[in-house]
Amino acid sequence: MKQLDTRHASFAAQFDALLQARTGVETSVAEPVRDIIAAIRTRGDDALFDYTTRFDRLTLNAGTVRIAQDEIAREAAKVAPDLMTALHQAAGRIESFHRAQVPDDLSYTDDAGLTLGMRWNALDAVGLYVPGGKAAYPSSVLMNALPAKVAGVSRIAMCVPCPDGVLNPLVLAAAQVCGVSEIYRVGGAQAVAALAYGTASIAPVDRIVGPGNAYVAEAKRQVFGHVGIDSIAGPSEVLVIADSRNTPRFVALDLLAQAEHDELAQAVLVTDDETFAQKVIDAVELELRTLPRAKIAQRAWADHGAVIVVRDWNEAAEIANRLAPEHLEIMLDDPQAFAAKVRHAGAMFLGRYCPEAVGDYVGGPNHVLPTSRTARFASGLSVFDFLKRTTSIATGPEGLKQVGPTGVALAKAEGLDAHALSLSTRLEALGA
Amino acid sequence: MKQLDTRHASFAAQFDALLQARTGVETSVAEPVRDIIAAIRTRGDDALFDYTTRFDRLTLNAGTVRIAQDEIAREAAKVAPDLMTALHQAAGRIESFHRAQVPDDLSYTDDAGLTLGMRWNALDAVGLYVPGGKAAYPSSVLMNALPAKVAGVSRIAMCVPCPDGVLNPLVLAAAQVCGVSEIYRVGGAQAVAALAYGTASIAPVDRIVGPGNAYVAEAKRQVFGHVGIDSIAGPSEVLVIADSRNTPRFVALDLLAQAEHDELAQAVLVTDDETFAQKVIDAVELELRTLPRAKIAQRAWADHGAVIVVRDWNEAAEIANRLAPEHLEIMLDDPQAFAAKVRHAGAMFLGRYCPEAVGDYVGGPNHVLPTSRTARFASGLSVFDFLKRTTSIATGPEGLKQVGPTGVALAKAEGLDAHALSLSTRLEALGA
Repeated sequence: MKQLDTRHASFAAQFDALLQARTGVETSVAEPVRDIIAAIRTRGDDALFDYTTRFDRLTLNAGTVRIAQDEIAREAAKVAPDLMTALHQAAGRIESFHRAQVPDDLSYTDDAGLTLGMRWNALDAVGLYVPGGKAAYPSSVLMNALPAKVAGVSRIAMCVPCPDGVLNPLVLAAAQVCGVSEIYRVGGAQAVAALAYGTASIAPVDRIVGPGNAYVAEAKRQVFGHVGIDSIAGPSEVLVIADSRNTPRFVALDLLAQAEHDELAQAVLVTDDETFAQKVIDAVELELRTLPRAKIAQRAWADHGAVIVVRDWNEAAEIANRLAPEHLEIMLDDPQAFAAKVRHAGAMFLGRYCPEAVGDYVGGPNHVLPTSRTARFASGLSVFDFLKRTTSIATGPEGLKQVGPTGVALAKAEGLDAHALSLSTRLEALGA
Repeated sequence: MKQLDTRHASFAAQFDALLQARTGVETSVAEPVRDIIAAIRTRGDDALFDYTTRFDRLTLNAGTVRIAQDEIAREAAKVAPDLMTALHQAAGRIESFHRAQVPDDLSYTDDAGLTLGMRWNALDAVGLYVPGGKAAYPSSVLMNALPAKVAGVSRIAMCVPCPDGVLNPLVLAAAQVCGVSEIYRVGGAQAVAALAYGTASIAPVDRIVGPGNAYVAEAKRQVFGHVGIDSIAGPSEVLVIADSRNTPRFVALDLLAQAEHDELAQAVLVTDDETFAQKVIDAVELELRTLPRAKIAQRAWADHGAVIVVRDWNEAAEIANRLAPEHLEIMLDDPQAFAAKVRHAGAMFLGRYCPEAVGDYVGGPNHVLPTSRTARFASGLSVFDFLKRTTSIATGPEGLKQVGPTGVALAKAEGLDAHALSLSTRLEALGA
């Protein structure tokens, strides 16, 4: 864990190093992923089943690749009632927030007499990737499937790898809660390729979303253009802005909640009080003694953690904007005032009793968020990811008379004569 | 040009072939582009200037790479007054439509007492790629720069290749009209790399937009993730839906306005009248005798053009949805009724006097649109491309008591104990 202080002369260089440390990680899986995609495109299901045998030690065929309805129901029934209640509360809140996001269509007739419009339509089909093994999180199913459902996507095809054939009841229960019934027990780059290009068993989709390992991320990158994808997710990160009026242990646990995700996760504390900073550092150490995932969290905290002491909250806001963090906790007396200064962040958590874990599960806003400083240009998952816009222009002769001549002039200037003629012949026919 | 008829037994296969014909074109420039990007990242300006010498026969240095203000003004002054008037009318209309797109922020307090929000913020810096040579279209500058300006982007850096040092007055005038003053005379993959990673002369941006050749498209694809990009543009396409009450020459010119773009452009007519179809085909042939860009248009029409005769407009709507065309002209008595059936199209043009060229220049909606059937999942350029969302959750102790236990249950189920503890220790402190 690095300790920085904006009063130190070395701060600028140290902070730049912190910004760079986790970026520029080159992927080394481009070639194998290219081969996998090519195999799926040429050999379809055969290749999909071959890879699943090889990577997941699971033998599939056209009859078993899709998890049957009764199998989903049987697995989901294994989930404890109180967990089902939790899933339902979470799903209800997530659905409700995403419903509030649904945008309005646009339509108006302007002074020139043209009627201009913009209509939002849902995608027809979406692929939802759910990681297998340890990272098979039911919350991830809710966060990816519900915005698609709210947007009006009629077909949601979910892929989840099932190494050794083991199903995850909680993931299937979450899918059931969201109304996702088309689930395939495949994963990796081969699942992404199958979703993008289709096989005999899996019909192609229009967009693929969901987290995954380096192979999955690279596969999404490679199929991008043929289908849409969500942001390529990197390791998770949190920036906690906290004054000394906070309980050090709360702050420490919030930092560790990021750090426990994986060894590349980044947890950063910014505070204006050196003594408080030390108390949090001590509290982190204390928690690490008992935390079940201490080994991962310890590694992440040691390698990527940072504690930055600032002179004032304006400095802190500037640091937040440069980091463009995925998660930003603002544990101050007036968190709204601080939030107003933030231009770049995936999601913000305001108040001393609003840890980021609220947003991971049950707050309502999406937990799929831009990582690795991409909040500079990217957004969290939302209904917008499952909608697209069609604009429209409608006009009769009068409107054309108003704008046609400008179109003719610009088309001629660009040397596109058929463009110009398509306007000018109509204008001539109208006697304009 | 292919002639299809939905009454023929071979229609399904022929239509599938039409859908496939222009897709799946593999790029062969991935390797050279990778090298160019690597060179820019390691050698910065030196590499940028070397490539510009090699590809554009133009020697640049840190003092000349950016086009100076007075040089922009001098070039822009060469543009004829009526063209300047046209540029201003077009810019005004485009800006006005995009202003109507600007979305509202979201904020509400729900039953559990949590205040949920979603705020739109503009990107800090955007790179605008403008192709050089023949395809250096001033309308493209307007369509890319104005949405960024309306969104509130404070820095717009434009790159335009200037082979042999030749500047395009109209492009510079368009930039001036949009208020873009940061313009660099570089192009190709090297310009994209410079915008993405920055050099001594060009500060990095957060998102790169604008059309370009195969090298530019591949470069955008490769820098995606580090910065945002717009859709990778393919060859242009139009689908014209027209009944026999239309003037065949108008329809023919609309088809040719697409075909003249480039040899891969696709123009498709769907009509319910075989005789009318033949009249349009004849009119196309007639226009090709005199059209300045006849060679390109003829090639595109021969290779990718199609005329499809349908039994009714429901069939036509189904064809439109399967093609998901970039441009859709609806030249029918009730174009709105047809438009209501369209789920996938980049932009629609409604009425017999609303050719697609209206939208290219002066209608208001953007002319940067999803090509190659990507309207299934993608949208035209808009203010949304230059905004991103930050969600927020704010709560005090009471809200946490409402949702915290669900978060604890799910976090424990996912084996993320620090997540659970970050909630449960607060709940315990509250006596909950």
